[in-house]
Amino acid sequence: MIGYAFMGAVHSQAWRTVGHAFDLPVDVRLAAIGGRDSVAVKAAADRHGWAAFETDWRTLIARDDVAVVDICTPGDTHASIAIEALAAGKHVICEKPLANSVAEASMMADAAASAAARGVRSMVAFNYRRVPALAYARSLVASGRLGTLHHVRAAYQQDWLVDPAAPLTWRMQKERAGSGALGDIAAHIVDAAQFVVGDLLSGVSGMLETFVHSRPLSGGSGLSAASGGSGVGDVTVDDAAVFFGRFAGGGIATFEATRFATGRKNAMQLEIYGSGGGIRFDFERMNELQFFDGSLPDSENGFRRVLVTEGDHPYLEAWWPPGHPLGYEHTFTHEFRDFLLDVSSGQDPSPSFADGLQVQKVLAAVSQSAESGSGWVEV
Amino acid sequence: MIGYAFMGAVHSQAWRTVGHAFDLPVDVRLAAIGGRDSVAVKAAADRHGWAAFETDWRTLIARDDVAVVDICTPGDTHASIAIEALAAGKHVICEKPLANSVAEASMMADAAASAAARGVRSMVAFNYRRVPALAYARSLVASGRLGTLHHVRAAYQQDWLVDPAAPLTWRMQKERAGSGALGDIAAHIVDAAQFVVGDLLSGVSGMLETFVHSRPLSGGSGLSAASGGSGVGDVTVDDAAVFFGRFAGGGIATFEATRFATGRKNAMQLEIYGSGGGIRFDFERMNELQFFDGSLPDSENGFRRVLVTEGDHPYLEAWWPPGHPLGYEHTFTHEFRDFLLDVSSGQDPSPSFADGLQVQKVLAAVSQSAESGSGWVEV
Amino acid sequence: MIGYAFMGAVHSQAWRTVGHAFDLPVDVRLAAIGGRDSVAVKAAADRHGWAAFETDWRTLIARDDVAVVDICTPGDTHASIAIEALAAGKHVICEKPLANSVAEASMMADAAASAAARGVRSMVAFNYRRVPALAYARSLVASGRLGTLHHVRAAYQQDWLVDPAAPLTWRMQKERAGSGALGDIAAHIVDAAQFVVGDLLSGVSGMLETFVHSRPLSGGSGLSAASGGSGVGDVTVDDAAVFFGRFAGGGIATFEATRFATGRKNAMQLEIYGSGGGIRFDFERMNELQFFDGSLPDSENGFRRVLVTEGDHPYLEAWWPPGHPLGYEHTFTHEFRDFLLDVSSGQDPSPSFADGLQVQKVLAAVSQSAESGSGWVEV
Amino acid sequence: MIGYAFMGAVHSQAWRTVGHAFDLPVDVRLAAIGGRDSVAVKAAADRHGWAAFETDWRTLIARDDVAVVDICTPGDTHASIAIEALAAGKHVICEKPLANSVAEASMMADAAASAAARGVRSMVAFNYRRVPALAYARSLVASGRLGTLHHVRAAYQQDWLVDPAAPLTWRMQKERAGSGALGDIAAHIVDAAQFVVGDLLSGVSGMLETFVHSRPLSGGSGLSAASGGSGVGDVTVDDAAVFFGRFAGGGIATFEATRFATGRKNAMQLEIYGSGGGIRFDFERMNELQFFDGSLPDSENGFRRVLVTEGDHPYLEAWWPPGHPLGYEHTFTHEFRDFLLDVSSGQDPSPSFADGLQVQKVLAAVSQSAESGSGWVEV
Repeated sequence: MIGYAFMGAVHSQAWRTVGHAFDLPVDVRLAAIGGRDSVAVKAAADRHGWAAFETDWRTLIARDDVAVVDICTPGDTHASIAIEALAAGKHVICEKPLANSVAEASMMADAAASAAARGVRSMVAFNYRRVPALAYARSLVASGRLGTLHHVRAAYQQDWLVDPAAPLTWRMQKERAGSGALGDIAAHIVDAAQFVVGDLLSGVSGMLETFVHSRPLSGGSGLSAASGGSGVGDVTVDDAAVFFGRFAGGGIATFEATRFATGRKNAMQLEIYGSGGGIRFDFERMNELQFFDGSLPDSENGFRRVLVTEGDHPYLEAWWPPGHPLGYEHTFTHEFRDFLLDVSSGQDPSPSFADGLQVQKVLAAVSQSAESGSGWVEV
Repeated sequence: MIGYAFMGAVHSQAWRTVGHAFDLPVDVRLAAIGGRDSVAVKAAADRHGWAAFETDWRTLIARDDVAVVDICTPGDTHASIAIEALAAGKHVICEKPLANSVAEASMMADAAASAAARGVRSMVAFNYRRVPALAYARSLVASGRLGTLHHVRAAYQQDWLVDPAAPLTWRMQKERAGSGALGDIAAHIVDAAQFVVGDLLSGVSGMLETFVHSRPLSGGSGLSAASGGSGVGDVTVDDAAVFFGRFAGGGIATFEATRFATGRKNAMQLEIYGSGGGIRFDFERMNELQFFDGSLPDSENGFRRVLVTEGDHPYLEAWWPPGHPLGYEHTFTHEFRDFLLDVSSGQDPSPSFADGLQVQKVLAAVSQSAESGSGWVEV
Repeated sequence: MIGYAFMGAVHSQAWRTVGHAFDLPVDVRLAAIGGRDSVAVKAAADRHGWAAFETDWRTLIARDDVAVVDICTPGDTHASIAIEALAAGKHVICEKPLANSVAEASMMADAAASAAARGVRSMVAFNYRRVPALAYARSLVASGRLGTLHHVRAAYQQDWLVDPAAPLTWRMQKERAGSGALGDIAAHIVDAAQFVVGDLLSGVSGMLETFVHSRPLSGGSGLSAASGGSGVGDVTVDDAAVFFGRFAGGGIATFEATRFATGRKNAMQLEIYGSGGGIRFDFERMNELQFFDGSLPDSENGFRRVLVTEGDHPYLEAWWPPGHPLGYEHTFTHEFRDFLLDVSSGQDPSPSFADGLQVQKVLAAVSQSAESGSGWVEV
Repeated sequence: MIGYAFMGAVHSQAWRTVGHAFDLPVDVRLAAIGGRDSVAVKAAADRHGWAAFETDWRTLIARDDVAVVDICTPGDTHASIAIEALAAGKHVICEKPLANSVAEASMMADAAASAAARGVRSMVAFNYRRVPALAYARSLVASGRLGTLHHVRAAYQQDWLVDPAAPLTWRMQKERAGSGALGDIAAHIVDAAQFVVGDLLSGVSGMLETFVHSRPLSGGSGLSAASGGSGVGDVTVDDAAVFFGRFAGGGIATFEATRFATGRKNAMQLEIYGSGGGIRFDFERMNELQFFDGSLPDSENGFRRVLVTEGDHPYLEAWWPPGHPLGYEHTFTHEFRDFLLDVSSGQDPSPSFADGLQVQKVLAAVSQSAESGSGWVEV
């Protein structure tokens, strides 16, 4: 695993857990963690239970005891690490967004395709697909319970940047992060919407907004610090992105991603309405799916709160009795389970780098629309 | 009052009630109700407590015992009735949307302005402004509790047209209704958003969608029937409208209005986020306002469910003790109270016909954007 | 109608409305309102639309233009007014609790039975039975959807007495009100539970509590003032009542009624669980019923929020389209509708004075249990 | 650790995690797991990551590499294992209820006290104290935010026994489990209520109920199987327990624990109302605390949904950014953290065996009351 900040911590917890929670055909060993700062990465290795650490990701990739490379670094480094790791015959999981540009993502998808031909597998870590409630929502849609799609209404609302004194980090710098709310969180709702619906967006119209244009530099170092030292630095990405679009097979969608929704902490929300029913989800209540089954009589009908903690819900065979909530970290535990099962059985995991590229194209279309008067842009 | 369908019934209930609930400087008498079908309008007069009825709206306007004309007819008749009533010196309340076109709305606003100069008053019936929770939300924003505006997220979701066998009515015919979800319900959330925020939209980008293009004709008559007899008729308006925009003073907004959100009945929703806090509202729970006060410590903070039923909440001095819900009809009772108080004191009621015209311009801009590849259109 | 405080206002609104909302075989006229304070009762008559007023309830009963007597006074006056009105051949609606003692309630029930034999009808005003959601809940239970009853969990939580400086009123004086939370609000949940379940409590065990033993006297007059002038007066009733019981046909129940649940305004709550499903209700969201239908597959099941605003829900034919909330006042509008239809068709309305007596017996059993170490008391 | 069923699995996950999530002065090693069935316990050891296994708990206790004994077996075995382990100088964590009788619990408390004098520590595993939302609720109450206590309303609702065909397990046999819902889940809400309030119950009045008196025997073996082979067996414990009580320092409380609340899965609920505010909690939404702060102005007040996921909430320094939910398992992770910190620093962990004994006395008082006509029983 490369990267040891927030994503590094939660990935570690999932790697430690996956082999105990699920029956897997392989043993999971936390071989080595990589990072540039030797003191910090050593501390992370100790804390998170990794057997070794490396300060050069190339060395880490080259290790014999490493079979899977899990990339948790900022987006500007994804392409080079992933391509090299695949070339070295290592299976790769890469955090989203796949890359900071369509061009990079495209190279990565090409690399993944040629690696797959050699039996080397890859996956982009859109972990929300592995929220049991969303995996279950996908199964409801796939089985036709929602009928013909009419509407998707998606939002990802956070508020951690409302305070203009919040310091600049790499997530607010275009050269590191590629974009702001767009690539960081809109990417999740685009992927989740397409995943649950089972169709792809064919075009979009969008608008980006930066509310706070400069922020204090924290002066810190390490992965989460911004480049540029102390003082004040420019925010060069969007604070919020809003857009609407159409699905190839019909149905329209709206998206809103923001770090300025005061009071919302991690409200990744998805509503889907079809001719046969409706679905509503909010990650702040990740164990619940609101489901309206249009086939019931009107007088007794309503959205029902399905607690997605039953034994026959997706991934729930590993966990606790009904009504005992699961937490965020297990979106990754489930992701790694699926990845390891696919790798073991010689299948390509999903979402693939090609799927990541397609999301990247949607985001690029939003940016292009936003830069040209919000006019329609085909994906 | 002219018109006796759904709006006629609820307006009647409010007219019967307003004088008993509030201290008013005038007596309220339900003088006469108008409609073209004499049998139906007589029945409506009896049922709803009107002293007389007329089958010709011009005769109704001319009556000496009519001081206020309340227009509840489809949008294509608003302009002629309102302009003639104002000319006759009658105060006018007109249902929304003000008219089916900017041109008509503009004539009405001109007529209203010149009538006001003669002491004749007018109001467009955006009744959601008189939901106590939204009036209270306006007071919170006006007092600065939300700080600088960042986001509005508005939706008006209904599902009464999801069934393709639902019959065609005048509300689905462009020549009668002007537009579909756009004029009928998007109008409400545009007005409500602008009202609560206290600012106007300066530009929009939008998309319209018709999911079901033809519907059975019911063969009925009367105001709610579609023109055209029996068989199948064309739906010539939008089933859904989505758009985003910017406020003149800063802040961005998204809007979604649909009659195809399966499971949502009358979910007129408004979220507002500013630098100081957030507000969330859903008309299906009309007595509640979710309020996040950003000035409290993070660890104990959260959206609080304010039951807007306290004695010092807007309009609540007329009603019941805390915790006893109010119903939809009183949005009109409150509207008529405000109208009568303003008329009595010689003030122009709000929202004025000019306000109705401005909303009409926003809707026209959405239509224009939708017809031209969703590009940005200034309001 | 006798009494013109809170209950007088809301009853008046319902009497004014019922004939316009529903098809009734009789005309409703607000003939006369009674109260002891001539200035106040005249003002109430004007405000609420009553044609006349009387300061002596015996005179009011004697009027030829009065066919129905609606008793909204404190409980200590119910028996004498109701018995005299029935004797005079007037139909009677009496607010709950029916009386302040079982003895009085028993006399009233006897009087009602003998009046019924002469075609004179009576009803006790447990208005929560006419909340559409609870009437609908009753129909679900009656049709067997909940199966065998296991649990009732009921609560009525208010907080208007938490402040020890809240003044003493007649509602806190035993000689006027009979009891406190027990008779005022526990009465409602006992009746509602028995109504929805369709069975009667056979025994109870209970505890009463008074948190604040003396309160300032407001020094006011009129119906809501306490007896005793200014200064400080003793609270001689319970602030809260908790008890559990058994239903005759099986199933156990818990009840909690309090005026000290800080933050709850009028939270009249009912949960019912049977072998076939569950129901949850909170009057603060009076238009919603949470329904769990146990016959659906576990994986897709959950409580569904039924918006009880569909045209085929109880009483809803009179009102608005789906999703448009009703308010508290219409629990009385519905009650009067049912009363008038029964009177017109020569049927005994429900709940009868005998039903009111049975609730009184339950409350008396709770008091008796509370006074004797919470031991079990048969009803 | 002794025991490897549901509790064994979740305890294992917490033991594997605690050292990685928190800074601890000790290393955590999963030394050995105990169980009587050698095949099953070996499988559990492999699955859950234990280095060794034992089929005799005495052997396990005697191992040199075991410093802490974690008892996850049915209640009838707690006393002998715990007392022997303490005597052997091992620190002990024991699942709740502490024992199946007050007598056993009393012996255990005595053993714990004498062990503590030798520096050997013990704790009873009321894990709900370590739900961050409840730990935070405790801090709010402790700091006086709720003022004087008036009401506790607690319930623990499950529905896994509603189906009469659900098989008999040891949890429904008095000789193994001691009691049913009373000891299994009422124990949790008694402890949680006393913990959050910071006071003890001084007396109770209660009622127990068994709805289904015999159930099919599954014929299985192992810890979760019932004794008795195949066929049908008697349910000898309560399916539901309801009771009310008083706190020593004032304030009244109601409790309801049931396995028959159809539709509720693991709804451990707690409401607390004091003179200064109110708190509401439902474990099905374990990351949320509803808090009403009575010091705010009425017009803007309401219960606020605190997402207990901020960095300064109890235990949250170990986890993810705000808005990312935690799951059930970490109630144990937190418990083990606190236990290990206390053991390391030579302090007695809380809740102690004495605390477990006190809860046992409350449960015994409820049983005694239920057997004697629900009369009041002092604790």
